[in-house]
Amino acid sequence: MVTIKDIANRLGISVSTVSKGINGASDISDELRQQVLDTAIEMGYRSKRMRREQNKRLCIFIENMSYESDAQFGYELVLGFRQAALRDNWDVTVIPVTPELQQKERYDVYMLKNGYSGAFLLGFALQDDWMEQFSSTTIPTVLLDNYIPKNPHVSYIGTDNYEGIDLAVAHLAELGHTRIAFLNGSPYSLVSDQREQAFLRSMESHHLTPDRNLMGQGYYVPESAKYHVSHFLENGATAILCGSDLIASGVIAECQAHGFSVPEDISVTGFDDLPISAQLNPPLTTVRQDRAELGKCGYYTLHSLMRDVSISRTLMRPQLIARASTKKRENIS
Amino acid sequence: MVTIKDIANRLGISVSTVSKGINGASDISDELRQQVLDTAIEMGYRSKRMRREQNKRLCIFIENMSYESDAQFGYELVLGFRQAALRDNWDVTVIPVTPELQQKERYDVYMLKNGYSGAFLLGFALQDDWMEQFSSTTIPTVLLDNYIPKNPHVSYIGTDNYEGIDLAVAHLAELGHTRIAFLNGSPYSLVSDQREQAFLRSMESHHLTPDRNLMGQGYYVPESAKYHVSHFLENGATAILCGSDLIASGVIAECQAHGFSVPEDISVTGFDDLPISAQLNPPLTTVRQDRAELGKCGYYTLHSLMRDVSISRTLMRPQLIARASTKKRENIS
Repeated sequence: MVTIKDIANRLGISVSTVSKGINGASDISDELRQQVLDTAIEMGYRSKRMRREQNKRLCIFIENMSYESDAQFGYELVLGFRQAALRDNWDVTVIPVTPELQQKERYDVYMLKNGYSGAFLLGFALQDDWMEQFSSTTIPTVLLDNYIPKNPHVSYIGTDNYEGIDLAVAHLAELGHTRIAFLNGSPYSLVSDQREQAFLRSMESHHLTPDRNLMGQGYYVPESAKYHVSHFLENGATAILCGSDLIASGVIAECQAHGFSVPEDISVTGFDDLPISAQLNPPLTTVRQDRAELGKCGYYTLHSLMRDVSISRTLMRPQLIARASTKKRENIS
Repeated sequence: MVTIKDIANRLGISVSTVSKGINGASDISDELRQQVLDTAIEMGYRSKRMRREQNKRLCIFIENMSYESDAQFGYELVLGFRQAALRDNWDVTVIPVTPELQQKERYDVYMLKNGYSGAFLLGFALQDDWMEQFSSTTIPTVLLDNYIPKNPHVSYIGTDNYEGIDLAVAHLAELGHTRIAFLNGSPYSLVSDQREQAFLRSMESHHLTPDRNLMGQGYYVPESAKYHVSHFLENGATAILCGSDLIASGVIAECQAHGFSVPEDISVTGFDDLPISAQLNPPLTTVRQDRAELGKCGYYTLHSLMRDVSISRTLMRPQLIARASTKKRENIS
């Protein structure tokens, strides 16, 4: 194990100076403190605070994701993680992250300063500042829906998007739909990329031809529907597969605003199975991600990384929840 | 929970007859016993023997894989699984499987009759009889290196083959090799398929052109080398990436038999990091699969399935172990 003395030797400074650097004392220069922290991280140093049993701390960083109420996507993720971590006596802090925080402070430095032993990261986008740093971090880190190649300290967990999209396509194909449109969520997202590939692959496996006029990309919000639904309808879509339940809620409203009835004229599917999906009119057929289990899985994976068991990725099975927003396509002669 | 009475009702027979069928009593016909077992499985029945806390039984089925001595691939897989399962008081039976056993008895029936709550399967090939049955089994089942789509009761665990092959290609590319040959293991294997795709993809990402004259497929045994190495050497290979350590051991011997020195004339890499790989002459550069951790991961995943937490797949990170069988390619003018 790397000690403060090892860091002192490497830098040719005293143990007390290293200690000051790591504990944030004010009587050393910013430059020297930064050098101490950088060296400590490079050497894989873990502070007493990080190792102390009676003060075991983990954190959940959240960006671009709501989690405060039980209707929101992140709520059960946070809850599931907390529940599993609590059994092992971990204290879990939830930290909303801004781009500014990421620019101001390096990830490893933030973790070391605050004495967190590991982190679960929700909602990060590919272009986030910290994302690049995850390639070389030595802090145990689990990302929801983001994959970092080759770093043994970082894992990816998520729902199997290929199976999820395939469940929805198979369901619509079985109902006789062939003109299936796909309204995806945000760009710069691994999940969106996977779902688009899955859509193309799944359509092919069902001997259906994906039509670029029936594919659109928005954001994971209901408003995305406004820019795509009329175009889909004009191009003969009889079903719209949506990248999330929120998008689907907008799509249903937009179809109805255009005088199309769901599911009589057009079938709509979601993704996630948020609590709202059962409350929509009509209740939404969707692909369920079990968010509480994903949260628990996030903790178990982090726990493995902290014991140097290097899991690259864990994917959960999605499940099709058939409700009333999809219907057998009538043959039109 | 499904009871014996439910099965009796479904079949219109008495509870005692169902009980006889499930417990293998001799005073009912074979046909009726089979019908009882089939119905029990279809309805997701779990016998008392399967549920009884004081008699918790799991099994490991092994096919095409040696595991008896610590030098063999399966040894630590079995050990790791047993170790993790023991902590939860599971009794684990190791069962070598033959094609005959698979033909004679359906998987679910075998599990139900013998009172196993779940299984970890090692070394199965794509064409095995039971493989097709895993699509619809309701018994918690974890497969090493085999993926079954969509069944929530079945998980796939393994090492990330894409990363593993990429580690080896990146290592050889960094040493200046461009004529890299690939000798893969058995056909009809998910792992072999993944490694071949990974090789093609990784070569491309390193701006190297894979040459079909430098690609061969054998089996996961040293003898595979005999049929491919001279062809690789004639076609100007300066490095041979092997699908396993056993293949690599054959490749080193074959190179030497042809008067080529390893690593001076030709670099060789393995896959697995079996105990022998450090003892070869020269010691083998290879991609490590942590088999003890894979075994533990097999148990944790099975444990999740038994609690209805449906994990689709868990992949572990491989690690490059650089030894003496690879060397910088000298520029030849």
